[in-house]
This record gives sequence, C-alpha cells and structure tokens, in this order.
Amino acid sequence: MRYLQGLPHQLPGNRQQLAAYQARHFRFEMESGVATVTLDRPERKNPLTFESYAELRDLFRSLAQAEDVRALVLAGAGGNFCSGGDVHDIIGPLTKLDMPGLLTFTRMTGDVIKALRACPQPVIAAVDGVCAGAGAILAMASDMRLGTARSKTAFLFNRVGLAGCDMGACAILPRLIGQGRASELLYTGRSMGGEEGERWGFFNRLCAPEDLLPQARALAAEIAAGPAFANGMTKKMLHQEWSMGVDEAIEAEAQAQAICMATNDFHRAYHAFAAKQKPVFEGD
Amino acid sequence: MRYLQGLPHQLPGNRQQLAAYQARHFRFEMESGVATVTLDRPERKNPLTFESYAELRDLFRSLAQAEDVRALVLAGAGGNFCSGGDVHDIIGPLTKLDMPGLLTFTRMTGDVIKALRACPQPVIAAVDGVCAGAGAILAMASDMRLGTARSKTAFLFNRVGLAGCDMGACAILPRLIGQGRASELLYTGRSMGGEEGERWGFFNRLCAPEDLLPQARALAAEIAAGPAFANGMTKKMLHQEWSMGVDEAIEAEAQAQAICMATNDFHRAYHAFAAKQKPVFEGD
Amino acid sequence: MRYLQGLPHQLPGNRQQLAAYQARHFRFEMESGVATVTLDRPERKNPLTFESYAELRDLFRSLAQAEDVRALVLAGAGGNFCSGGDVHDIIGPLTKLDMPGLLTFTRMTGDVIKALRACPQPVIAAVDGVCAGAGAILAMASDMRLGTARSKTAFLFNRVGLAGCDMGACAILPRLIGQGRASELLYTGRSMGGEEGERWGFFNRLCAPEDLLPQARALAAEIAAGPAFANGMTKKMLHQEWSMGVDEAIEAEAQAQAICMATNDFHRAYHAFAAKQKPVFEGD
Repeated sequence: MRYLQGLPHQLPGNRQQLAAYQARHFRFEMESGVATVTLDRPERKNPLTFESYAELRDLFRSLAQAEDVRALVLAGAGGNFCSGGDVHDIIGPLTKLDMPGLLTFTRMTGDVIKALRACPQPVIAAVDGVCAGAGAILAMASDMRLGTARSKTAFLFNRVGLAGCDMGACAILPRLIGQGRASELLYTGRSMGGEEGERWGFFNRLCAPEDLLPQARALAAEIAAGPAFANGMTKKMLHQEWSMGVDEAIEAEAQAQAICMATNDFHRAYHAFAAKQKPVFEGD
Repeated sequence: MRYLQGLPHQLPGNRQQLAAYQARHFRFEMESGVATVTLDRPERKNPLTFESYAELRDLFRSLAQAEDVRALVLAGAGGNFCSGGDVHDIIGPLTKLDMPGLLTFTRMTGDVIKALRACPQPVIAAVDGVCAGAGAILAMASDMRLGTARSKTAFLFNRVGLAGCDMGACAILPRLIGQGRASELLYTGRSMGGEEGERWGFFNRLCAPEDLLPQARALAAEIAAGPAFANGMTKKMLHQEWSMGVDEAIEAEAQAQAICMATNDFHRAYHAFAAKQKPVFEGD
Repeated sequence: MRYLQGLPHQLPGNRQQLAAYQARHFRFEMESGVATVTLDRPERKNPLTFESYAELRDLFRSLAQAEDVRALVLAGAGGNFCSGGDVHDIIGPLTKLDMPGLLTFTRMTGDVIKALRACPQPVIAAVDGVCAGAGAILAMASDMRLGTARSKTAFLFNRVGLAGCDMGACAILPRLIGQGRASELLYTGRSMGGEEGERWGFFNRLCAPEDLLPQARALAAEIAAGPAFANGMTKKMLHQEWSMGVDEAIEAEAQAQAICMATNDFHRAYHAFAAKQKPVFEGD
C-alpha cells in the first residue's frame, strides 16, 4: 500500500503533491490547481498503449491524495483527442492471449475508468478531431466534455469484432445521450459529429479548435476556485447515487450535505456574503 | 399519527378535503381539483425559510389523503419562482449548528422532496425569473415544469461552499437533462437559461410570462380531468422503478396496471368509447 | 421445453432457422439475416389482438436460438405503425375479467416486451403514422427507432382510464427522452410528433415515408453485417446494466468483452486490418 511507504512527497493525513510529477507516457502539467494530461503521440493520433493505460490508472488513483490538484483536463496533441487502443500495439497482442490474460487486460482498462471516476477532482475532456474506441471511453467517463465541430467520436468496438460494452459504455453512454442514441452508436460504431454531440448532451459546448484547450482550462480553473472538498462530494454522490432509489438518494445527500455544512468553506461563504464580498475557498 | 386523530375534515377511509386549508407561509388556492401553491414574498424573490419548508412538507404529506386535489401547481409571486434558502434566515443559523443539528436540517429539507414525490398528484412547477438553490430543487423534483425564456435556474450550492448533492439533485437532475449537463450545472452553479432548459428537457415547454400560470393551471386541469387513481399509480411507478431492472419493472407494471383495470374509471372509458362519447373520469 | 422436442429445423447446440417461419397474425419476411415483422391490418391501423400478442411473444422468444436472424425490423402496413390494443377485441373483454384474469393479460403483454429485449438481435422499429398505446410500447422497447415527420406516438393509456405504467413504460421511456418529457406524455396521453421525437432522442432519425422501411432495413443490414455474437452481447449488457452501479458495470463489461475477445470475429477483424482489408464477420 503506497501510502504506508512514507514517500517524501507525502504529507500528514495521507496527502501528497503532484506538481512535480514526471509523466512518462503522456504530458502532465500543473497550473493553479488545474492538472492537464495531454496524450502526445500526434503522428499516430495519440493511441493508447499498455504502458499509457497503466500510467493513467496510477495517476488517477494518486489523485485521491493529491491536495494540489482541484480539477483535471484530459486533452490530445496535434488536433486529435485519442485514437484508442493501437491495432499493432494492443489488438495484435490481445489475439494471442488466453482467457485469464484477456480478463487481466479488460480489467486493467476498466480500472482506468474506475480510477477516473473515483478521484475527487472533476475531469474535463477537451475533444478535437479523432476520439475513437478507448479514447471515446475516456471522454465519456469524464465529468464534462468540451468539443469542436470537427470532432468525431466513435465507439467503434463492433468494427473490430467486439461488443459495445467496454469500460462501462453500456452503463454511462445512455445516461449522457439517452438509451436510443447510445444504442445506435454502440451497434454501428459510427462517428458522432460535434454538433450532434452537443445537441445530444455528450458535449457541454463546442469551441473553435484554437479555443478548446484554453476554454477547458478556464472551466477547470473556475471549478478549481470553488469549494474543492464540496466538489469532491458532488462527484462522489453523482457516482454513488447512480443506481440508488430516489428516497435513499435523498437521505444519502442529507448526510453528505451535512458533512459539507461542517466545513470551513461553508462558513467562509456565509461570512463573505454577509460582508457583501466574494468568498475565497480553501478546500477545507 | 394524524389520521387517527379524527380531524373534522377527515372522511371514511382516511380521506380528507384540503379546499379549506389556510396556508400560513405561502398562498394556497383550489379550483376544480387543481391546487396552486404560490411562494409569496416577492420583495425578496420568494425565499424559503425554516417555517415554509416545514409547512410545505406537511402540506405535501397531507396530499396523500386529499381526495379533492388531483393536480398541484407550484408557482412564485412577482415574476420569480424562488430564490432558495435565505442567506440570513437559513445559512447564517446553519453555521452555528452542530452535526446532529445540521443533519436534522438536511433531513427536513429532504423530507419536503420525499413528500412532493410521494403524493399521488402530479406536480407542475411554473418557473419564471429566479429559480435558485432550494427553489431549483423544488422545480427539479416536480413531475413537469413550464418555464419562461427569461427564467434562470441555478443549482448554486457550490457558490456557498456546499456540494451539488442537495435534496436528491445528483440523482434526479441527470435523469432530466443527462449526466454531462447536470454535472456542469452542479460543479459550476451557473444559471441555466429558459431556452437551454427547454432544449435539455428540464422544461416541458416555455411560455410568455403572462401565460405561464394560466398554462400551468390548464395542464394541471387537463390532468385533473383524467383518471386520478391511475395517474397516481403512474406517479408511484415512475418513482418505484427508478432503480429497478427492466424485467422487474415490467412485472411491477403488470401488477399495477391490473389494479387499474379493476377500477371504475377503466370501465367508464370503455363504455364511453363504445358509445362514441368522451369518458368522464371520477377517480375511483 | 421446446428445445428438447427435437423439431426438425433445430440444429446442434440448440440453434434453429427461422427463414421458413410462417407467421399467422402478421407478415414475416427474411432477407440476408434481416427479419421484418409487419403488423398488417391496415384498414384498422394495425391493432394488436390477443392472438398477435401471443405470436409476437413466441417469435421473439424463438429468436434467442435463431442463428439465421441477425437483426429485426418492426413495421406496420399502410402508413401506420400500430394502433395498440383494439377497443373491441381487447378492452371490452378485459372489463369482464377478474383480477387473476387481468394479471394474466398484463403479464402476457409484459412477456412480449421481456422477450423483445431478451433476444440477442438488435430490433429497429420503423414508425410511420399512428403509433399508439401498445404500439408505442413496441416502438419504445425496440433498440432503435426510425420515424417520419408525420408519425404520432401516443402513450394514451390514461385516455382509457389506465396508468402510464404499461409494459415497462415508466422505466424505459424516461431513459429515452428524459424523466420530465416522459412524465408529460404519460400523464396526458398526448401525441409526440416526429420532429419532437427526433429532438428528444426517441427517434434516431426521421425519414420520408417512402424511405422509412428501406432505411430501417439498411440500418438492420449494416448491423447484420457486423459481429453478431458481439452485438448480442452489447444488447445483453445494455439490458443487464440498467440498474447496476458504475463500478459493477465496468467489471461486468470486463468479463463480457473478454468473452468477445475470444471469438473468431475478433481475430478476423485483426487479420483484416493488418492486411488493410475490410473484415467479414461470421458471427462466431
């Protein structure tokens, strides 16, 4: 268990800093509480590999303790988001695996998504150009998505002989765009265009390509300036209440919100409003 | 238990009349089976107080036995719906409560929504102007919503240092407008405009401000003229099937609909159609 | 149990062929793996009867073993989809049934929908003109829907004194078009027009009436040319994950996708891509 190993960058209460993190299989930058992960093999439209999957999983897991990260942007280099699992680097090797080996792989990719959803920081995907296969899943599993008109998002698993049920797609995609539209995308593997994606609720809004990353970072910065602890609770409860009954969800929220009312940020907000000032949140 | 106290306005079978109900913290009117609750402190955009929360909860609970109410309209006076919990009347006192006190409050507000959803009458929110915080929750938890182009609906909990998980928002809002759009509103607290709300499915339709209340009442009257017992069953099952599997939901509906087929209203409808007349429903 | 009876058209492994199936209460056609069911009493807008319900249920159930059917189109003859349960043939007799008899009926209709959702073939409804009552349910429960601008889809149960909770409507319709829009349709019984239905996600797209069936069949043929086993897994998981938590869904998909990675179709796709060819799927 990593948090027991007393790494130098860990702080009391199982907290750590990620500002100095040196990513190996993608770019990682930090500015004012906003971390940006950029998939960065533009000559191949930023495919995922076994190594980048594993590093994304580990990074997302470490975000649970990262007190200096308050929001995360996922982006791709060179005008494309991500082309998914590479045919030669991933699909070829998979055809040689036995069943335990296959399940080890599908569970590892699933763990990337579980970790993405379990970290307390809201995640914003900045989607331009190609967004395909596992790349479409990364965008889908993010909390919010900004896109471009020219973006092409394709859940193209059935084009390679696989099912649409990959890393949670049959659960999550219908909740974003509705069951009927999700079914079509998963059964045909066809691309969803940018305007279609905005109209259907996949994209929160569309940006000009040159504005995409700045706008994603601005949205992330706006969220990072908010109450980080409470935002983490919002993310936890959106996940937690996914398949809960409404009455049980209301009780769960009564407990979660009572916890947030005991935070300093809630008191800061009240005193700021009483003094007709803008509150400054500190995340505790 | 109130129904054991033999209040004069109670009828056999645990039924009661609400026509003569004298509300203390909002306006209450009845006409032809349609009750209208109007939040009515327009000079402050109709905020909620501890007292109005409690009275709403009690009124919504009593609707389960109210045989003279077949649909409910929620509205606000003076061009706004509701500004939510008042900073001075509610937020200030909350900052002084201990944890059991906080939980008592969040459970009380949650009980308002549980009661709103448990009453058999369909509830229509008529939303103009400001619709913020707990006001946005009241609109969201209603069964249908009519809005105006100028309405501004804001789940602004994170603006006061709290989480978006308030009174069921993380469960209900994503089912109205999709998970991605709900996430943005809950993480940023930004206003959703009227046209946006209609496009996203939050509003069933938009009305001119002066037509809003008349149209909400007309829709309520149309529903009130329908089969009240069966409409109550529709509401119950929409709630009941929220987190049920599809096969289990189909069996649950087979039972619920068989009950409705044993009502007089079903027989009335058949005989009216056979006689090429319009059925007149009586609610039994 | 039918598969134990050794019917001549059954094959090893509990498989059978449906190409020679002679339907009695609707038209049934097969072409290139696409089956088309056409409700065919156009002079009465294709109502359902006790007999057609039962035959649909049995056909849908047999699709689980039908290795020659890879996608299904549901259509109606003469410019209408289906007018639902006939007033004289169904509603009249129902008013004379006792409670066990009513429940037998509602369970039988529910079984039609359970079977429609349980068969591995994606189902596409081609909806023109009237699509009402149980007809609207058949369209709603299909995996995808193509419509026309002039189509009128009405969940008109409350018009005949019944509840909107029929054959899964309170569970499925909100997941297609959102909880607020579904509530209005179920409480009022009003028609949803074609453009509205497309905008809300009920229809995947609209077609000119003369193009409707050809386009539905083309979409079905496109899906039929895909990996049939994997598509069946997509359908199974969309159903299976309906009320699952996200983490559990991700694990369920890890298992389901690992199974698909062990199929020949996945290997065929890889070898085709490696050879820069288009894969030809065989469904195993």
